[in-house]
Formats: sequence, structure tokens, C-alpha cells
Amino acid sequence: MTATDQRLATSSAPVRGAVDMTHGAGGRAMADLIRDVFQKHFNNDYLAQGNDGALLGKVHGRLVMATDAHVVSPLFFPGGDIGALAVHGTINDVAMMGARPLWLSASFILEEGFSLAALEKIVVSMALAAREAGVPVVTGDTKVVEKGKGDGVFISTTGIGVLADETDVSGSNARPGNAIIVSGTMGDHGVAILSKRENLDFETEITSDSQPLHNLVAAMLAAAPGVRVMRDPTRGGLSATLNEIAQQSKAGMVIREADVPVKPEVAAACELLGLDPLNIANEGKLVAICEAADAQVLLAVMQAHPKGRDAAVIGEVIADRHALVRMQTRLGGMRVVDWIAGEQLPRIC
Amino acid sequence: MTATDQRLATSSAPVRGAVDMTHGAGGRAMADLIRDVFQKHFNNDYLAQGNDGALLGKVHGRLVMATDAHVVSPLFFPGGDIGALAVHGTINDVAMMGARPLWLSASFILEEGFSLAALEKIVVSMALAAREAGVPVVTGDTKVVEKGKGDGVFISTTGIGVLADETDVSGSNARPGNAIIVSGTMGDHGVAILSKRENLDFETEITSDSQPLHNLVAAMLAAAPGVRVMRDPTRGGLSATLNEIAQQSKAGMVIREADVPVKPEVAAACELLGLDPLNIANEGKLVAICEAADAQVLLAVMQAHPKGRDAAVIGEVIADRHALVRMQTRLGGMRVVDWIAGEQLPRIC
Repeated sequence: MTATDQRLATSSAPVRGAVDMTHGAGGRAMADLIRDVFQKHFNNDYLAQGNDGALLGKVHGRLVMATDAHVVSPLFFPGGDIGALAVHGTINDVAMMGARPLWLSASFILEEGFSLAALEKIVVSMALAAREAGVPVVTGDTKVVEKGKGDGVFISTTGIGVLADETDVSGSNARPGNAIIVSGTMGDHGVAILSKRENLDFETEITSDSQPLHNLVAAMLAAAPGVRVMRDPTRGGLSATLNEIAQQSKAGMVIREADVPVKPEVAAACELLGLDPLNIANEGKLVAICEAADAQVLLAVMQAHPKGRDAAVIGEVIADRHALVRMQTRLGGMRVVDWIAGEQLPRIC
Repeated sequence: MTATDQRLATSSAPVRGAVDMTHGAGGRAMADLIRDVFQKHFNNDYLAQGNDGALLGKVHGRLVMATDAHVVSPLFFPGGDIGALAVHGTINDVAMMGARPLWLSASFILEEGFSLAALEKIVVSMALAAREAGVPVVTGDTKVVEKGKGDGVFISTTGIGVLADETDVSGSNARPGNAIIVSGTMGDHGVAILSKRENLDFETEITSDSQPLHNLVAAMLAAAPGVRVMRDPTRGGLSATLNEIAQQSKAGMVIREADVPVKPEVAAACELLGLDPLNIANEGKLVAICEAADAQVLLAVMQAHPKGRDAAVIGEVIADRHALVRMQTRLGGMRVVDWIAGEQLPRIC
């Protein structure tokens, strides 16, 4: 039995031990890690090519590219983990362009001493998320940094998608009179992370909404091809996303607090912690802006889709050269929905 | 003057201070950083779209995708820095598939407290490298981790390239009788990093060979379209790369020590440090494998190119079911060129 045969014979054994510096060094230890963890679970023909990158084939249509680094802490949280999140986050960024995600790449920065069993659990979750979404991880890279120079694992994913000729979705397309729709409840992901991080015990466990939205987006575009803007309110929450779009489109917005869906347990947790659910990150929700005439059709399609059941029209785009986002409060007043300078929750994604 | 006007008016001021947690939070501080550092220097129409990803247009031909995380330490070294390296590394991975690199994405993981001036210097270097190579950075992402949970900055880049129909380059294509060529001297990058890291003073400063190889590859494919294998010997050096190819192609190799180009100062440093230049990373060199009949044409084209002046034929592929790589030493003996298990130099790229 050669050394190679021996390694092949043991390749389905469970992975034990911890990441050490050799796992990033380009030698045999790294090749073993790639085979026993990454190739084993991602398991597709692209990765099996074994070259410096993946050969993907031809695409008919305009390409879209999006990338995200993931540094969420803790790595495992109610409703997800960094692996599934890294898949969902980049699929959603591609989908928010109106495009169909086709392929993902993944690069891992591992900290020396990180448990290989935890890494495998993350990769299994990532592979499952990719398989469920139908978007394979086709190429990757692994680096290792010394203990105390990283934090377990960071994962950067990049996605390629294809955009139909007739689709024109952009943050700069909002126009006065357009309707603003959200696909579901706000703040779930951020509050789930925070409650896990701070060991808070709520009566109802709050789980992350981490999920891929590309199939919801496809259904929306089929029903209302003229959708003008789509964006997922991740870091900074709905407030940051609406302010970004308002600035890109040079238009104002008015939303109604009473119409923004927030789960009672998330609202309660936010009140307890002094947080505003509009500033809290989501990882499986989107904001859509469309012609007022399309709003009811779009809403119906979203509510009929498993990933948009709680969709709601929350407000309108208005003419405003200051591009302010304002909210009619439950009490009837009007307040500016500010784009916070800083941070409510670090390392949320 | 609105807050927005005020920010725009000051956008060309130099960047001062340090990264803090707000720079990764999705709020205004992050938007300012993106505008004042990333958009300012990368400065292209793709980034100016301001959406969750970049709309790239149509591509005629097969797509290729490659990704690399960069964690090199120190961040600045003789002959380059992490920014230029992150551009060159991924361009080269795409080029090694025989493809023409078209676009790059970049995701940054910043450590709290990292100097914004150093970050800007890195981004300037990255932008220059991208411009010189003609491969723009079209989309990106920034995350911030707490002090002690990262190490200054890590950069993951992903590249998309297009592959001509007639090109078939893969690590599994080496066949007995093929010639093995390297494009230049081995070990420069790794020894440059090590000497900087360890504050070693050699008579001649050893500089990294960090450079993009896609134009050299294009010239090679034009002259010898039948090139079978191309790969850049980065982590693990020439030894790891030849062993990888040997295993993929299920063939052996014999190289001649006297024919492998190594700069005298690199050879001297390696001898002093007890390192083997064949195990040391390169960041601007490639290994090519071609039919013996093509070798002299290919060699001439490489030597005529500014990035392949020291190219040399170093050996042949042979039939060997154990896929061993062996070397005829200067003294006339034969030794196995082993694929080292571990690490000679951590965080080399």
C-alpha cells in the first residue's frame, strides 16, 4: 500500500483534532483537509476538477457578481450557522440584482487550534444550503492564521449569476409614487444572534431568518417584471437599506410603523434591550419597490410563496431632494428614520 | 448644506485614524469608508453602480472562476504588499486554467484599530495592480472584527475569466514524454517574506516576484495552443505543484536540479536558513507542461516575454504508476522530490 492508497483508504473516517498551521501550507496536510472535508461534503464535478479554479461552461445572458465576507459570532446560532449564512448571504446579493445565482466560490480563513469537527459541521451545513438552493460551491481556498490572529473561521463567498435582458433592478430606480414592500418580519436574525451571544433566555426562542431568496425573487419577477428595486436589509437593517436606496434614487420615502411586520417576541426583546428593530439585520428578507399599480399583484405573489408569507406594503416613495426616509409612528407622529452612524450589533454576519 | 452634501464636500480629504467597529456596521461610517477609500481608488463604473453586486454584461466563451484568501504577514514586503498580491494571486489562478481574467471581487476583513492610512495604501496598491493588469475590481465587501480577533487586514479575491473553446489546460493532462518548463527563478517570494519577517539582512535585497502572468499565458497559448498543463507554484513551491500534477495525471516526473533556475542570493539565503528553494512559494512564476515537440517554441516565446525571461526546461514527465517526482541532483544522484507534509513558512500569501 503506498502512502496515497493509505490516505484514500481512510478518507471516510471522521475528522478529529484541531486546525494547525500545516493545514494552510500547500503540502499534504492541506491536500488531506481539502479531500476529507471540503471535497467530501461539497462533492461536485467542478471541485473534482482539482485545478486552481473551476471551469464552469457558457452562460447566455448578462453576468452578475457579488461577494461577502462572513465573520458572524457566535459561529452557531438559533436558525443557522456561519456556513449556511455564507451561502444564503451571497445568493441573496446576486438575487437582489434580479439575477439567477449559478455558482459560488468559498474562501476560508481558519484560526490555528479551531476544532476540525466544528469546521466539518460548518462545511456540511454549507453544502446542504448550497444543495437546497441549487447553487454549487465550485471552487475554494483555505488559509490558516496563528491562534489569536483570527477567530475560529471566517468565510468569504462570491457568487456569479445571470440576468435576463429585460430585467432592470437597481437601487437607483425608485421613483415618487412607487410602493415599498417588505417580504416578512424585520429584525429576526440580529436578535437571534444577540440573544445567543448574551445568553439571553426569552420565553419563545428567536431564530435567525437566514434563507435564500432567489426563488422568491424569480416568482416576483415573473409576476411583475417591472419591479424597480430589490435589496436585502442585512447590516444596518431596514433603516440603512431604505436610506441607501433613497440616496441612490435621490428620492424620499414615507413608511408606516404599524405596517412594518415585526414578530412580537422580537419587538419585546428589542424593547428590553433598547434596540430599534428597524436597525437590526435580517438574512432572509427583502425590500422591493415597484409601481403602485403592480403592488397588489406583487404582494399576492409574495404572500403565496413560502419565503414571503408575511409580506406587507409598508409605504411609498415621495419626491424629496433631501432624500429623507420618514416614518409615521403608531402614535400618529412623523419621525426621521435615521441611518445610524455606527453599530448596534457588531459581527452580525 | 445637508449632512450628505457635507460628506461629499470633504470626500477627497486624506484618511486618518483607525478602523473601528462602526466601519463594518452597515451605517454611515461604513458608507463613508467605502466612498473615501474603496470607490475613490478602485474608481470604475461597476463599483459606481452602488448595488449589492456588479452587473458585468455578456461573455462569449466558457467561464472560469477562482478564489484566494490572502493572509500574508507582514502586510508590506520587498517587492509588494497584500493588496497587489491579492490581485496577482487570483489573476494567476484564472490564467493557469488557460483563461483570460476579466473581473475581480474583493472582500476585506479588517481588525479594529488597524490604521486607515495603511488600509488606504493597500487599496491604492491593489487598484494600481488591477489597472496595470487590465482586470478591474468590480464589487466588494468589508467586515470588521474586534482587536485580537484578526491581524490588520485579510483580503479574499475572486476572479472570473473566459476560456477559448480550443484551450484545454488541466493538471490531469500531463503525459509521459512531455516537457516540464518553469517561467523563471524559484523561491523569490517566500524568501523575500521570510527575510522581512525575520529582519534578515542579505547583501542583495531579495524581492518578491509578485506579478500577474495572464499576458505571458496568452502569448504562450498563441504560440503553442496545445500546452497541456499550467500551474503557479505558490504555497508548497515547485515540489508541491509537481506532485499535485503528477497525482492528477497519474504520471511520474524527473527534473534536473542543475536546470532549475534559482537566484544566487535566494540559494544562499536558503542554505543559511536550511530551506529547500523547491519548497518555497512563488507569486509570479508558472510551471508549464507541453509535448516535447513544442518545448523549444514555447521556451523561446517565454524567454522573449518580460515575465518569462529566465524560463527553462527542467525535466520530463515519465510513466510511473506511483506518480513519483524525482530529481537528478547536481552530484549525479537521484532523489525523490517530496511533497512536504507541513509547512516551511506560514502565512506566505
